[in-house]
Amino acid sequence: MSLYRLAFRHKSVAQNIKKGVKNSNERLEFLGDAVLGSVVAEVLFKLYPYEDEGFLTELRSKIVSRNNLNALGRKLGFDKLIEFDTKVLNTGRQGSLLGDAFEALIGAVYLDKGYDFTRNFLVNHIIKSHIDIHTLEQTETNFKSKLIEWCQRHGKDISFDVIENQEGESNKLFTVQASVDGEIMGAGKEFSKKNAEKLAAEKACTSLGI
Amino acid sequence: MSLYRLAFRHKSVAQNIKKGVKNSNERLEFLGDAVLGSVVAEVLFKLYPYEDEGFLTELRSKIVSRNNLNALGRKLGFDKLIEFDTKVLNTGRQGSLLGDAFEALIGAVYLDKGYDFTRNFLVNHIIKSHIDIHTLEQTETNFKSKLIEWCQRHGKDISFDVIENQEGESNKLFTVQASVDGEIMGAGKEFSKKNAEKLAAEKACTSLGI
Repeated sequence: MSLYRLAFRHKSVAQNIKKGVKNSNERLEFLGDAVLGSVVAEVLFKLYPYEDEGFLTELRSKIVSRNNLNALGRKLGFDKLIEFDTKVLNTGRQGSLLGDAFEALIGAVYLDKGYDFTRNFLVNHIIKSHIDIHTLEQTETNFKSKLIEWCQRHGKDISFDVIENQEGESNKLFTVQASVDGEIMGAGKEFSKKNAEKLAAEKACTSLGI
Repeated sequence: MSLYRLAFRHKSVAQNIKKGVKNSNERLEFLGDAVLGSVVAEVLFKLYPYEDEGFLTELRSKIVSRNNLNALGRKLGFDKLIEFDTKVLNTGRQGSLLGDAFEALIGAVYLDKGYDFTRNFLVNHIIKSHIDIHTLEQTETNFKSKLIEWCQRHGKDISFDVIENQEGESNKLFTVQASVDGEIMGAGKEFSKKNAEKLAAEKACTSLGI
């Protein structure tokens, strides 16, 4: 039980148990995040046998996004279970505590029951009933359009340029640069021009903090 | 066997098996990366019971870094097993194929034998004999000094400023901004000033592409 109780203890109310270490849910969150990532990876790998790893990576990050996990935590009533210091955390910042506690709970279940149990628990009681994968699949996280929109809003020029083009036996390798107001903000190297652009746009979004 | 063979097939020599999908090792790499992340998370969680999640996250990223996995792939003789198109990939770029194939192999083992087998295989035959966790622990990936060095090299001013300081019952919450030449490049909110600075520095490094 103490393991499960730990999963719901935010660091704002944790006590030092040893120099530099608190009895908060953060270590369990680290573990649970990894186990969840692995279970979701397998689910998607098997659910979409004909999609490439770019698709799988993108869909997984939507499923395990803070947004989605927070909503899940709220749906599961975690807001009544989490211990935290209301003086430090105002209501606006409480959202991410829900997703953090969800991951910490996965970590606790894993330590208590092992991987196969945790996987079956996640698949049968969480993913099937609470996560609509096909709707998330339709939700757009298109870095290229995100970058273009941001540039339009901020009155900046954006260009995607193929700067290299290597010939292989069966595939060409494209290098694309994304430049904002003439400054290179990201580059991508891929076997299709479209994917190289996507990668360059994603890196530019990260560089610009979009 | 076809699964294990797939783990060593780079996309440069893969064939289209269906519209948009190639029989390369990329999907297996996606799966293996997740399983490896989970196994390493558990190993570190148990090996370091008194370290916080920041320590665990940093040490895990060193272990699963491309650098480290490439070295591992080379040590295991994967360079003789990977199929790739030498016309597209010159020797300089071949390095990352080794780490990619290592992850893909983990994905193949997982599909073939399940999680517990894969974990035991990784722990007993890879991590114990080929990865020196304690040496990696000493290797520094200090974003703050990385950022400061970069600023010195480029003749830029760097400052870390505590901009907020919330009082809680037992813990103070610090917000620190990292500014380069007066421009805010990253901010971090943490329960210690040192960790808030680290987080701000890490975000600034990402923003600046360092």
